[in-house]
Amino acid sequence: MINVAVCGITGYTGLELIRVLLAHPKVSIKALTARFDKPTRISDVYPEFKGRLELVCESLISDKLLKKNIDVVFLALPHKVSMEYAPSFIDKGKVVIDLSADFRIKDTAVYEKYYGIKHISKEYLNSSVYGLPELYKNKIKRARLVANPGCYPTGSILAVAPLISGKMASKEPVILDAKSGVTGAGRKADTGIIFGEVAENIKAYKVGVHQHIPEIEQELENISGNKVNILFTPHLIPIRRGILTTAYVALKKRTSLPGLLALYRAFYKNAPFVKIYDQGSIPQIKDVVNTNNCAIGIVVSADKSRAIIITAIDNLLKGASGQAVQNMNIICGFPETMGLI
Amino acid sequence: MINVAVCGITGYTGLELIRVLLAHPKVSIKALTARFDKPTRISDVYPEFKGRLELVCESLISDKLLKKNIDVVFLALPHKVSMEYAPSFIDKGKVVIDLSADFRIKDTAVYEKYYGIKHISKEYLNSSVYGLPELYKNKIKRARLVANPGCYPTGSILAVAPLISGKMASKEPVILDAKSGVTGAGRKADTGIIFGEVAENIKAYKVGVHQHIPEIEQELENISGNKVNILFTPHLIPIRRGILTTAYVALKKRTSLPGLLALYRAFYKNAPFVKIYDQGSIPQIKDVVNTNNCAIGIVVSADKSRAIIITAIDNLLKGASGQAVQNMNIICGFPETMGLI
Amino acid sequence: MINVAVCGITGYTGLELIRVLLAHPKVSIKALTARFDKPTRISDVYPEFKGRLELVCESLISDKLLKKNIDVVFLALPHKVSMEYAPSFIDKGKVVIDLSADFRIKDTAVYEKYYGIKHISKEYLNSSVYGLPELYKNKIKRARLVANPGCYPTGSILAVAPLISGKMASKEPVILDAKSGVTGAGRKADTGIIFGEVAENIKAYKVGVHQHIPEIEQELENISGNKVNILFTPHLIPIRRGILTTAYVALKKRTSLPGLLALYRAFYKNAPFVKIYDQGSIPQIKDVVNTNNCAIGIVVSADKSRAIIITAIDNLLKGASGQAVQNMNIICGFPETMGLI
Amino acid sequence: MINVAVCGITGYTGLELIRVLLAHPKVSIKALTARFDKPTRISDVYPEFKGRLELVCESLISDKLLKKNIDVVFLALPHKVSMEYAPSFIDKGKVVIDLSADFRIKDTAVYEKYYGIKHISKEYLNSSVYGLPELYKNKIKRARLVANPGCYPTGSILAVAPLISGKMASKEPVILDAKSGVTGAGRKADTGIIFGEVAENIKAYKVGVHQHIPEIEQELENISGNKVNILFTPHLIPIRRGILTTAYVALKKRTSLPGLLALYRAFYKNAPFVKIYDQGSIPQIKDVVNTNNCAIGIVVSADKSRAIIITAIDNLLKGASGQAVQNMNIICGFPETMGLI
Repeated sequence: MINVAVCGITGYTGLELIRVLLAHPKVSIKALTARFDKPTRISDVYPEFKGRLELVCESLISDKLLKKNIDVVFLALPHKVSMEYAPSFIDKGKVVIDLSADFRIKDTAVYEKYYGIKHISKEYLNSSVYGLPELYKNKIKRARLVANPGCYPTGSILAVAPLISGKMASKEPVILDAKSGVTGAGRKADTGIIFGEVAENIKAYKVGVHQHIPEIEQELENISGNKVNILFTPHLIPIRRGILTTAYVALKKRTSLPGLLALYRAFYKNAPFVKIYDQGSIPQIKDVVNTNNCAIGIVVSADKSRAIIITAIDNLLKGASGQAVQNMNIICGFPETMGLI
Repeated sequence: MINVAVCGITGYTGLELIRVLLAHPKVSIKALTARFDKPTRISDVYPEFKGRLELVCESLISDKLLKKNIDVVFLALPHKVSMEYAPSFIDKGKVVIDLSADFRIKDTAVYEKYYGIKHISKEYLNSSVYGLPELYKNKIKRARLVANPGCYPTGSILAVAPLISGKMASKEPVILDAKSGVTGAGRKADTGIIFGEVAENIKAYKVGVHQHIPEIEQELENISGNKVNILFTPHLIPIRRGILTTAYVALKKRTSLPGLLALYRAFYKNAPFVKIYDQGSIPQIKDVVNTNNCAIGIVVSADKSRAIIITAIDNLLKGASGQAVQNMNIICGFPETMGLI
Repeated sequence: MINVAVCGITGYTGLELIRVLLAHPKVSIKALTARFDKPTRISDVYPEFKGRLELVCESLISDKLLKKNIDVVFLALPHKVSMEYAPSFIDKGKVVIDLSADFRIKDTAVYEKYYGIKHISKEYLNSSVYGLPELYKNKIKRARLVANPGCYPTGSILAVAPLISGKMASKEPVILDAKSGVTGAGRKADTGIIFGEVAENIKAYKVGVHQHIPEIEQELENISGNKVNILFTPHLIPIRRGILTTAYVALKKRTSLPGLLALYRAFYKNAPFVKIYDQGSIPQIKDVVNTNNCAIGIVVSADKSRAIIITAIDNLLKGASGQAVQNMNIICGFPETMGLI
Repeated sequence: MINVAVCGITGYTGLELIRVLLAHPKVSIKALTARFDKPTRISDVYPEFKGRLELVCESLISDKLLKKNIDVVFLALPHKVSMEYAPSFIDKGKVVIDLSADFRIKDTAVYEKYYGIKHISKEYLNSSVYGLPELYKNKIKRARLVANPGCYPTGSILAVAPLISGKMASKEPVILDAKSGVTGAGRKADTGIIFGEVAENIKAYKVGVHQHIPEIEQELENISGNKVNILFTPHLIPIRRGILTTAYVALKKRTSLPGLLALYRAFYKNAPFVKIYDQGSIPQIKDVVNTNNCAIGIVVSADKSRAIIITAIDNLLKGASGQAVQNMNIICGFPETMGLI
């Protein structure tokens, strides 16, 4: 059994983390934090936990938390806040799994440009590991600070990593047309995400300027060893959870679908949550919602010059909290799928 | 042709008012106001008006507006703000149609209790007319200040007015179980109405304490001449627009459905927007959405002791902006249905 | 470990049963049946089960199933089909948990009136137990044939059982205004439930004639010992899952809220899935979705003459498949909550 | 005033046609047809028309309809059925506006491949005009048979026509990633579009094989004079109406956004329903729903080598019935925008 703390439980990823951790056979949740006016029982915030978890959420004070014999600290905090708190836990030898963007981007100039804030914990960036187990399982095993990937990057990187890694993509930009549920925008008072604005609507937003662009580029270039151009267009869709990503990749040489499927199956052969669909099947959000899976389907253009890869994930699980627990499993030596569906 | 101003265009009722008024053959929109940082073209706020209406929204300053030769001023302002501005227009002989609650409740003590603010324009309450044309058409004709009804009260009062007026309801409380779309809560930054909280959810709220309770009671007692008890339970439903109200009324004496239908048809014979459904038909939101209609269906319990009356309205039209234009039509001597569907 | 079969996996309750049973530590799913053209892997029907369950669904043939060493047979079949198959399993000593209506209504004349078909297994009705554990746990322990309750009856009966049982309800009809998600209508090709008809719509339907009315009456009269009148109005709401029931009960004598809460807490003290909310809190669908809970909140009218009781359940769990597994737990001697959230 | 008939009123496009035509100042609806068991009043099918249109729908019999002095016949019939009926009206000199696909594809071999049925009215294909007024206004003026475009082709062709026409697109395939509301699939009993399957889901479907692909290719090649390759990926989104199309076009030479905007504005200068957004603005479904507009926004990649064009239409208006009335206006010599918003 390990003891964990979840810091920041008022957002959707914090709530989902508690749900996942409660179902985990080797985890005991020892502390929850939130910025309430006063200490508040978690079951008063989320009645679904009545009788299942009766912890009191308190404000996040590192010293107080450090006294609680915690093994793993999950930071489900806003960007900027994470990097204020993470160092205090790392310095005391705790494992920190950070769901914010603060430790994902290695180039702080890029981080500062896209997030509009100064990075205040640069010295911890070197040791942070990008928590995408399908690419970095061995590094994650030894990590003390995991930068849990963003939801869009998870669906986008997994869509094209085998092609990029296999040097099969041409130099044309990789097109990533992503459709996300609204919980991806967080749980906050924002007129742009109220029901009346989002329901019966679809919109593209932050086209060409979304903060997940450098994260995707960094990781694809890491895989490739070269510059990778992407065109990333996020769309807001009136569903609660899930991201469907439709990737269009120009192939260096014409390739048939069976060849591509074989490539993907080989690339992900040790990735228990990646589900490669057979020819003719295409993933839908409903295939993966409430699971930690990333489902992948592939179609090839008639002339075999282009691959269309479609990935589906649950943005709150494989795109955030499920992946965080997957990382925890790897670090703690548990089976990678333990407590996850 | 008359000239109108719409004050407060950032909310859903203001937007809907513009749509309705643009389609009205006898109306020219001369002024729009909103609290923006700087004067802003309406088509920059709502691209649907590109090429159809190119007015600039300015801050609401009564003196400035009064110079524009306006005949009718629509106030789509928050409660409290309306009563600050209405007097200046009334005093200058303008017709004011106020979509807020400020001039609906005749008893200011009740208003102050339910709205939590002091009433600052009490002297105008005497002359305000409750703008429900199905009950008060003659008074509305001569009104200078119309208190446009709330959305819930419109659906609730029209559901039971014929029974209350006909002295057919017993002394048991009238039960009004109302289901509303989310635009009824306004267009504002409120975590409680973001998509992630509202979609795939249903909730009852403000049970027994909703601010529309005294408004419904006031009007039903007005019709009845006696005290009328109601139990009013509003529910939030994940649709953009529409209210379905299910009313349960204990009848003084057992009555058959044909008798009730005849009563309702007679009561509403001069009400062009009220649609009484035939036996066996029950209104749905989709029957009335984008119209100014109130559709009414009736079912009688097996023992004929109770009537179940179901009304459907579009909360933004018959429950707000359509009704406001219906009131304008009556005051201005236009056909009651002009410009409305 | 027990072995189970799920018969009828193409509907929503069958799918949900598989999900719940897969998470149950003491259950092994040994057989699945469905009416496909040919034997079909479950993971081809529902990709979410890829790698988790790779059974092949075959047509339901009792003899074939009986050879598989099954302990409990779940029938997630349409009404009428269940009663064709249930006897063959009961006769061989299997436990049958039937999710259809076929064994719920003890009076076959009533069944035949509401379901429009002849009852062909009347001799099994005597031994069938209505599977609402909050009322009949002891009977369920010894049952071989469980008639798993309908979704609406579960939310309605649990709402008012303490008042009916405690002789606190007056003779006025109990009003049950229920709002259901669309999966309650099943998974079938029906124009009435396509997205374009249901989204942005609310409708009442089968008012006064719904087939769940006699089921609710039968059980409330069973509790009461007397005739109980109900007015039951089901509404279709554009959510996937969940039922919110708003019950209005006239009290024999004025009662305060603390008194009612105490009554409910006492009545349900051995019911682990019933969550009685504190004064001022009202359940929402989102509190219970994906759980087997029935959340109950109570409000009392100002004059204390009437109680408004609001219950929330997940129609596919507490209203169907979760409750079925709860019944299985009770019969098999497992902890009542095992494998359920 | 002209007299019109709407054939096929049970689908979404037929219903929408009636709504639009009722609001048209120069149109009198004289006949409605549908396959009901018996003649049925339209207001019994759609209660929203109570008091506004009281025609009786009868079965479609050409001879009967021809006696009614109809000027324009709208065929809102399924594919295959349209081509059975259209000839009888054309031969008698009526204007036929066909909303099916039957007269869109000039190459019947292609039609037969994609629609899986034999074309039985080939001799009428020569005279049919593809009813996209932004491209073919002059031809439409003289047309007797208008093949009203499909919903996806409308949004896709308008997105890229200026670039194709201006020879500015490179030879790389044009990528058309389209997101459609569910009414695009029609109003029919199909398990795939019931609420429970569509809500909270997103899916790509018919990738590379959708029947609108040859329609888009035919028209783009018509504009270009050369072969045009497209990759078209339709996605089903849980909204009732609207299509957002995100097009990715590789440019022959690097071009700045102002240059592209100027090109689009020039190309569409006589297209009253096309709204080109200013730099930095991107259309959303809600900008165009309930209007006949096609809103277009453009973004250019950082290296100016690629344009991302986003179009939004209401699939039932500009994508079907609004466009049909726009075509009628052009043929009848009315202002192109008459009766349309």
